[in-house]
Amino acid sequence: MKELKFIVTGRSLSKSKLLAKVRNFEIIVDEPLEIGGSDEGPNPMEYLLIALAGCLNVTFQWIAAERGVDIHSLELILEGKLNPEKFNGILTKDRAGYKEITAILKVKSDASKKVLEDILRETKKRCPVSDNLMEPTPLRIEIENLQ
Amino acid sequence: MKELKFIVTGRSLSKSKLLAKVRNFEIIVDEPLEIGGSDEGPNPMEYLLIALAGCLNVTFQWIAAERGVDIHSLELILEGKLNPEKFNGILTKDRAGYKEITAILKVKSDASKKVLEDILRETKKRCPVSDNLMEPTPLRIEIENLQ
Repeated sequence: MKELKFIVTGRSLSKSKLLAKVRNFEIIVDEPLEIGGSDEGPNPMEYLLIALAGCLNVTFQWIAAERGVDIHSLELILEGKLNPEKFNGILTKDRAGYKEITAILKVKSDASKKVLEDILRETKKRCPVSDNLMEPTPLRIEIENLQ
Repeated sequence: MKELKFIVTGRSLSKSKLLAKVRNFEIIVDEPLEIGGSDEGPNPMEYLLIALAGCLNVTFQWIAAERGVDIHSLELILEGKLNPEKFNGILTKDRAGYKEITAILKVKSDASKKVLEDILRETKKRCPVSDNLMEPTPLRIEIENLQ
């Protein structure tokens, strides 16, 4: 199959606020007031959970459809905790990001729990965002000093 | 420092579309028409890049400010490529997610390239989203069958 390429551009509007552009969409990333932002949008760690929630939805629904399983409704609750010390430059043994992410999928379906758990197991493997979180993803970041 | 907790809830509006709620914000995740969606918002893989772009902005700006370096402007371009076969259930040696993510930071600053590269090196370590991508992040996903 043809390789897919995704591109996002962003312009820093303040130390905390970014205007991101994706195809025809403009998305604001910001921080809450108490973290020094202007609270005009979710923050980066929240967008990470949004990405995972969206990916679990489409992958779970897709695999259910492949198997002829009707999903009457699907709601998700995602949560992550982190120690902000590393971000703040404080010496710590903890990592900078989420230590773990938990997700609960509340599914209304006539299918058995066993069938749904099997779809979920497959979802974890095939959801691209899950894969980029669970397995190491190389980042190549370069700087251009425009002066 | 106090541990930070982030929570996102989501409701599936279609096989491809999710309404995500975060504090006072409502965010739509969707897929483009050609991937079977209704194209009302960025897709999950784009939100993953948005999360990283927002995190690189705030972390880079934060560390520059710590070091007394003025950043006159900052623009970012992020890109990721993936093979959609695994998502589609086709046997492949490729991973499901991005093989690599590249980011270019276009910075206007009076600081030297060396100073900016040093800020970037520190940014990669302290940005929570970078950490969750570069290092394995445990996901615990459970299902509740509401029938």
